[in-house]
Amino acid sequence: MGNNKKVGVLGLGRMGAALAGALLGAGHDVVVWNRSPLKAGPLLDRGARLAAMPAEAAEADVVLSCLSTYDTQQPVLDELTPSVLVNLTSGTPEQARGVAKWASSRGIDYVDGVIMAVPQGIGTPGARILYGGSPTAFAAQRDVLEVLGEPVFLGEDAGLAALYDLALLGIMWSTMSGYLHALALVGTEGVAPERFTPMALSWLSAVGGFLPGIGAQVASGEYTTDVSALDINAAGLKLLVETSRERGISTAVPAPLAELFGRAAAAGHGAHAIASVIEEIR
Amino acid sequence: MGNNKKVGVLGLGRMGAALAGALLGAGHDVVVWNRSPLKAGPLLDRGARLAAMPAEAAEADVVLSCLSTYDTQQPVLDELTPSVLVNLTSGTPEQARGVAKWASSRGIDYVDGVIMAVPQGIGTPGARILYGGSPTAFAAQRDVLEVLGEPVFLGEDAGLAALYDLALLGIMWSTMSGYLHALALVGTEGVAPERFTPMALSWLSAVGGFLPGIGAQVASGEYTTDVSALDINAAGLKLLVETSRERGISTAVPAPLAELFGRAAAAGHGAHAIASVIEEIR
Ligand SMILES: NC(=O)c1ccc[n+]([C@@H]2O[C@H](COP(=O)([O-])OP(=O)(O)OC[C@H]3O[C@@H](n4cnc5c(N)ncnc54)[C@H](OP(=O)(O)O)[C@@H]3O)[C@@H](O)[C@H]2O)c1
Ligand SMILES: NC(=O)c1ccc[n+]([C@@H]2O[C@H](COP(=O)([O-])OP(=O)(O)OC[C@H]3O[C@@H](n4cnc5c(N)ncnc54)[C@H](OP(=O)(O)O)[C@@H]3O)[C@@H](O)[C@H]2O)c1
Repeated sequence: MGNNKKVGVLGLGRMGAALAGALLGAGHDVVVWNRSPLKAGPLLDRGARLAAMPAEAAEADVVLSCLSTYDTQQPVLDELTPSVLVNLTSGTPEQARGVAKWASSRGIDYVDGVIMAVPQGIGTPGARILYGGSPTAFAAQRDVLEVLGEPVFLGEDAGLAALYDLALLGIMWSTMSGYLHALALVGTEGVAPERFTPMALSWLSAVGGFLPGIGAQVASGEYTTDVSALDINAAGLKLLVETSRERGISTAVPAPLAELFGRAAAAGHGAHAIASVIEEIR
Repeated sequence: MGNNKKVGVLGLGRMGAALAGALLGAGHDVVVWNRSPLKAGPLLDRGARLAAMPAEAAEADVVLSCLSTYDTQQPVLDELTPSVLVNLTSGTPEQARGVAKWASSRGIDYVDGVIMAVPQGIGTPGARILYGGSPTAFAAQRDVLEVLGEPVFLGEDAGLAALYDLALLGIMWSTMSGYLHALALVGTEGVAPERFTPMALSWLSAVGGFLPGIGAQVASGEYTTDVSALDINAAGLKLLVETSRERGISTAVPAPLAELFGRAAAAGHGAHAIASVIEEIR
């Protein structure tokens, strides 16, 4: 391939190994570093080169870093001065902005990214990676980043991707917890996950269809509804809590939501739409 | 139309009015009853007939009942003995089974249904209605029920639809709460709902793709993971809680989940998949 690049990858955990593998698959020249070098084995078999020190992997067109946390990452970054750094380690907006400042002080072009996919999804359609930071570095390395997943550039603020990441992961944890509670509830009557899940999936896609309307109400602060009032939903949540308790399963998932909806209703939003619950959150 | 039927509809709230409207649209002969008869106006203009008493609406091939609660519904039902009753009022499995018993004692063929749609969705693709109860009554009235939404028959147990309903609504409340928290979080940096929501929707569809795998792990009790361990997710939830607190928004949505995931990790599931959280729920 004529347009292959030299790409450094720091970190060969589940995710870093998936990133390096996708880049090898696309014909790039990949140099990898990991604290435990043994993990590089399968990648070396596929043509990657092993860097003995992080700085060796940094002699590349672009360096991707994917370690467990910012705290474990910083000592590794301190050993190198790459021309372009794409940081794919998860953290807070403040942590990402901290690395952006560090990079700027060293003259490194910096892009902060968050991976909205599992390692198995890397390089497949549906994998999305959100980026913020240097627009020129993003544009110049777009060909490399496209190998990993659909790249979405959010803007020059290097902290924005981490903010979106936490917000989106929050939705995932909420949805998964709701799903696990639902499995436990139908499980009390012997309904198996494989029987219930198809219903959950088509319902979840219907629920997705409700979100833009909720978002528009949050944006406008106009909470009137001709669909279903908060009071009815708060009562429904109470029913879910009672039914769960009667069946001897934990109410850890629905009970705090019943309280939250109840507080919003008590604060005067009973006849309003569910969107009005945001007034209790922010 | 040759195969139109006489259908009674009890309750003309948001949902009952939508049901009656769809049935009129399909050419059925619709008799409606509501405590406040004025609400029938628009339906009468479209050809419905008004019953002065519930029993009048029950002289039909099938009677649909959609009132606010089982408690408000029972006194209405006590006034009639239809040949087939389809109960679309929301409640618990126990309440649905109670009406099934009442119906059986009166020789009424009984089907209990739950509507997984908003009133505006009735009669449109994507609207699903789950049913349990008499298979013969369901089969005989399927043509009428198909007008309202895609009918799914769960089995002879009249309480099953209500159980699925609570479980599915729980997923909705969890997902909506997670979404509202996410809007509040990105809102702290001035990101508007219309900017964030497209990301949330494509991410929610990716999250849907994770559920069957989680369901399979719940079914087998085999929680090993090559995706992402509970420890990492519990730490992520803690980060979401801290970041939310620092930005002055409520932690009501993520904090109980951080505790739940933390408890599951402490109970020995730290290296397991998120599916293992169900062990803390049931
Ligand atoms: N897995 C996912 O589904 C997923 C999805 C999106 C984002 N992410 C993010 O991607 C990043 C990596 O996740 P992962 O799943 O690959 O985690 P992982 O499998 O646990 O790998 C962790 C990586 O960090 C390294 N590391 C840990 N402590 C270190 C230290 N003190 N010094 C140097 N290196 C150290 C590990 O090196 P050793 O091999 O030597 O231990 C390994 O390379 C995380 O920020 C995660 O949040 C993961
Ligand atoms: N709206 C939704 O999005 C939705 C979705 C799925 C399921 N459902 C379920 O559908 C059912 C009806 O919901 P809805 O949205 O139509 O509610 P709604 O708009 O509040 O209507 C409530 C209905 O119940 C009647 N009612 C209340 N108290 C009564 C009493 N004491 N005696 C006789 N009638 C009484 C009302 O009559 P009046 O007009 O005289 O007040 C009205 O017909 C509920 O069980 C709900 O959970 C609703």
